[in-house]
Amino acid sequence: MPNPTNPTDVLLHERDARGVVTVTLNRPQAFNALSEALLDALQAQIDALTEDDGARVVILRGAGRAFCAGHDLKEMRAQPSQAYYQSLFARCGKVMTGLMRLPQPVIAQVHGIATAAGCQLVASCDLAVASADARFAVSGVNYGLFCSTPGVALARNLPRKQAMEMLLTGEFIDAATAQQRALINRVAPADALEAEVERLVASILNKPAAAVRMGKALFYRQVETGIDAAYQLAAQTMTCNMLDDCALEGVQAFIEKREPSWRVASGA
Amino acid sequence: MPNPTNPTDVLLHERDARGVVTVTLNRPQAFNALSEALLDALQAQIDALTEDDGARVVILRGAGRAFCAGHDLKEMRAQPSQAYYQSLFARCGKVMTGLMRLPQPVIAQVHGIATAAGCQLVASCDLAVASADARFAVSGVNYGLFCSTPGVALARNLPRKQAMEMLLTGEFIDAATAQQRALINRVAPADALEAEVERLVASILNKPAAAVRMGKALFYRQVETGIDAAYQLAAQTMTCNMLDDCALEGVQAFIEKREPSWRVASGA
Amino acid sequence: MPNPTNPTDVLLHERDARGVVTVTLNRPQAFNALSEALLDALQAQIDALTEDDGARVVILRGAGRAFCAGHDLKEMRAQPSQAYYQSLFARCGKVMTGLMRLPQPVIAQVHGIATAAGCQLVASCDLAVASADARFAVSGVNYGLFCSTPGVALARNLPRKQAMEMLLTGEFIDAATAQQRALINRVAPADALEAEVERLVASILNKPAAAVRMGKALFYRQVETGIDAAYQLAAQTMTCNMLDDCALEGVQAFIEKREPSWRVASGA
Repeated sequence: MPNPTNPTDVLLHERDARGVVTVTLNRPQAFNALSEALLDALQAQIDALTEDDGARVVILRGAGRAFCAGHDLKEMRAQPSQAYYQSLFARCGKVMTGLMRLPQPVIAQVHGIATAAGCQLVASCDLAVASADARFAVSGVNYGLFCSTPGVALARNLPRKQAMEMLLTGEFIDAATAQQRALINRVAPADALEAEVERLVASILNKPAAAVRMGKALFYRQVETGIDAAYQLAAQTMTCNMLDDCALEGVQAFIEKREPSWRVASGA
Repeated sequence: MPNPTNPTDVLLHERDARGVVTVTLNRPQAFNALSEALLDALQAQIDALTEDDGARVVILRGAGRAFCAGHDLKEMRAQPSQAYYQSLFARCGKVMTGLMRLPQPVIAQVHGIATAAGCQLVASCDLAVASADARFAVSGVNYGLFCSTPGVALARNLPRKQAMEMLLTGEFIDAATAQQRALINRVAPADALEAEVERLVASILNKPAAAVRMGKALFYRQVETGIDAAYQLAAQTMTCNMLDDCALEGVQAFIEKREPSWRVASGA
Repeated sequence: MPNPTNPTDVLLHERDARGVVTVTLNRPQAFNALSEALLDALQAQIDALTEDDGARVVILRGAGRAFCAGHDLKEMRAQPSQAYYQSLFARCGKVMTGLMRLPQPVIAQVHGIATAAGCQLVASCDLAVASADARFAVSGVNYGLFCSTPGVALARNLPRKQAMEMLLTGEFIDAATAQQRALINRVAPADALEAEVERLVASILNKPAAAVRMGKALFYRQVETGIDAAYQLAAQTMTCNMLDDCALEGVQAFIEKREPSWRVASGA
């Protein structure tokens, strides 16, 4: 649960000595709905993290009883203009792709519900861990607003027919189903959720930041190209990565059957 | 089972008061093989549905003991010319993409076998429900004709190696396996197949047609683009959808914790 | 286990009377790491198979205790230059796409470990069968070298988040998990691995080589295009395939409910 530095902030962040940044959606009374203020705060956080060389892993979670219930419908409904919605969805899309383009891996730590743009947040993170009682839906169609933008992220995580079923019915799936369909990586009992996320965090911290940064950036570029272009891009990244001091030391350590000098912990 | 208005028609359609259109492949003696006449009738039906604003959901099923056994091989074999095959496969491809481009969601209701282009029909529908005894194969390779066109639809539903195994071996998979591999959404006992399809139908009828139409069309456009283009297209669709009366009313109803005025039933 | 014709060769190949070519990575003391010599031998083998009309199926396996442990890190570490790494990863990518472009289906027969570029080899084959004790990882990140090139193949086999988890954590998955995630097709007890591969081989031999060749080539072309272009390409292939003597005979035999004259065995 968050340790708010300022309980009136819609977005909280903590950064530990290891460079683990925990970002908490903090509108618990609104199930962390993505108001304009919250979207802007997320964008500012993404911009800051992009420049933060010491940040190693990002955890995204929600305060209160839910992960995130999507857009703030009250705010949205109050401004029924084309210009407003265009701007709103453009800003939302920028936040979603911004998570994918962060230099750090982003882990969604999901409890309660993740609906509509909240489900899109989960799909937009690199990894996701959910408590066993978490539930996921792209429920906009239930009130007449088909979750087209969440569908962009969903269709890049789930098989096509499973994504279509969620989008057309608006029905919830439980955490076990979400894991089976590859929307999330792991499921843990509610009281072990943080510990399961910490296992992934520890594993990532055990790797050099430069390798992780290069690898993550390449991954999302190459999946959008044909295979020949993908291999050309990947070969450039591998070359660059291999010439990095950490890889040269890591591979040398592997050959000498010892720990690399950069390893910070014994885990993973 | 179909209520044929004219038992000599190769394709039957019924339309209920709710706008649910049931399209039945009706060549039961030929396991509903896609003869030219049947392909042409399907295309005419697709053209009609495209213009039919009152049609809300389409169910595609087969009369007799099977869903569909693919192309009519006897007819195909009788005309061994390049021009004929080019025309035939072009027309077949147009039907398959036509299903994806219909304004209404299309649900495949599958019993018995769905093979070759019959399996492609299942893959080309938005959703698919099968009876527990249904079986699926892309079996052309067994008689020397690799199912290359069915493979187009299959590869957009199943993981790559699973699609390749079906294409190379021509072997059947059962309904449970088809569900696990995401070729179909749901499996029901044979005597509960229609009821399971009806659950999806009722859920979709509970949503505004305009939202469903915009959302479906956007989905298939965005999955073919890079993520930035996908979000641009999706943001346009969301904006357009949100400005629609149904969404404005639906979101208002959500805020006021009441049912939207357009909701036709209590279900789903 | 391989029957080496020359135990000092890094790559062995056997070809049986049926046209089944078994290619064995033969650096057992190095867990079949892909040294330059082995990569070059693989490329030469691919070039030869491309011209070998009598070869029908390729089995790729490893000698000794493992399938393949990826690149030869000792050799790689000894030449820390940009030009060397660029050339190395370009040659490796050419081998991987070369497997996909072979006219014959390629089946990975996996035992022991398949790590980094070894896991990429599995992902690059058309089909894969593993012994129950096989394990898979893209472990480069553990020594500071993110498996970006293996990730190209992995991301085209596994759902995105599952691929990212393997790439970021470097952790092993077991054979059952690899099957569930569609990295491999089948799992068999260690002592039944060859028999399971043989079942796939027999099934493929039962089909005409021309149909398999056309179908495989089309598959990897069409998955990289939009659906309309995919259907245009596939319709050309289907037309060409249907006009082939084997398909004309196979379809005729199907109509006459007899075995086609080209069928070599009763199996599959």
